[in-house]
Amino acid sequence: MGRTSDARQKILGAARSLIEGRGYTALGVAEICKAAGVPKGSFYYFFESKEALALTVVDEHWAAQQRDWAGVLGGDAEPLQRLRRLFEETEAGQRAVQQGCGTVSGCLFGNLTLELSNQTEAVRGRLQEIFDAQVDMVEAVITEARERGDVTVTDTREAAQAVVAQLEGQVMFAKLYNNTRRLSPLWDNCRALLGAPRDVR
Amino acid sequence: MGRTSDARQKILGAARSLIEGRGYTALGVAEICKAAGVPKGSFYYFFESKEALALTVVDEHWAAQQRDWAGVLGGDAEPLQRLRRLFEETEAGQRAVQQGCGTVSGCLFGNLTLELSNQTEAVRGRLQEIFDAQVDMVEAVITEARERGDVTVTDTREAAQAVVAQLEGQVMFAKLYNNTRRLSPLWDNCRALLGAPRDVR
Repeated sequence: MGRTSDARQKILGAARSLIEGRGYTALGVAEICKAAGVPKGSFYYFFESKEALALTVVDEHWAAQQRDWAGVLGGDAEPLQRLRRLFEETEAGQRAVQQGCGTVSGCLFGNLTLELSNQTEAVRGRLQEIFDAQVDMVEAVITEARERGDVTVTDTREAAQAVVAQLEGQVMFAKLYNNTRRLSPLWDNCRALLGAPRDVR
Repeated sequence: MGRTSDARQKILGAARSLIEGRGYTALGVAEICKAAGVPKGSFYYFFESKEALALTVVDEHWAAQQRDWAGVLGGDAEPLQRLRRLFEETEAGQRAVQQGCGTVSGCLFGNLTLELSNQTEAVRGRLQEIFDAQVDMVEAVITEARERGDVTVTDTREAAQAVVAQLEGQVMFAKLYNNTRRLSPLWDNCRALLGAPRDVR
């Protein structure tokens, strides 16, 4: 039992880093198993298909990220300070990956959105759910900030979508220029998008 | 002469639509030639490698888009009206593709950035140049608007980067949700990012 679940985790870990490095489409099951150091037979014991594996990689990544986001966005601090921390943690996370492997990896969900969304409907549906959940989480904080009079924005849904879009766009450029400093203006951009005064820290 | 340049254009057209549909990595030269209806030998007559082909696809797409952007952003209208027209034309362009083929194709440069930037340095370098040029064009208009007192933003470079990042992020979501209405808030988002009053049309 211990050993089989090891093999599953090894496959997932190898798939995750291969997808981050080279994308999903060009990846073969044999290559994943080789990188994971498990026999090819094990793959189909754990996963029905390469698509099923991709969905599991996405789900596991989101489970971890959702915990992080909930911790940051659900704290006791003032709402805008929590949003600010989300961007600071995002920048710190991308910096840590860059220091570890030399390149900014970007956002797994954004990468897969642009690579895959017109190819596999199952992955597209899952990514839609994840981005909807991200927008929900950000919108909840904006609504709190609005009730306190900290922001002037009227359509909180549209504002949350703009904040998440800004995040994805800037993470894309951090990846392209391999430069996490691209993420430093995120807080100022967010404040502008929400109509929050400059003196809110 | 006419016939050989036909073959080159056929290869470029087929590559462009295959890259838009399925990305670059999984694509083979044989498949491109089959879709283009040209013998495989012709490919290497025109292109040294698949990477050289990708660079040409990127260059041709940028040449056309740069003309469009220059036309819109360089006109006689007030600077913010020109920026607004850029977003309206982007939305109209994505809508036209969706009506033609059923799906929003997104931005070729954004797609390739997230698929490829950590794989081929040549493509990464080209994409960096293109996004730098886009930011230059947007920054020139923001600078004009600032000189007229239409916007309050102080760092015009950072503002232009935020506007292009917002555009890329929202285009990503238009693709993911196959919904061009995701692009409608672009003008309001841009106005907020630039600190332009709501009554600027």
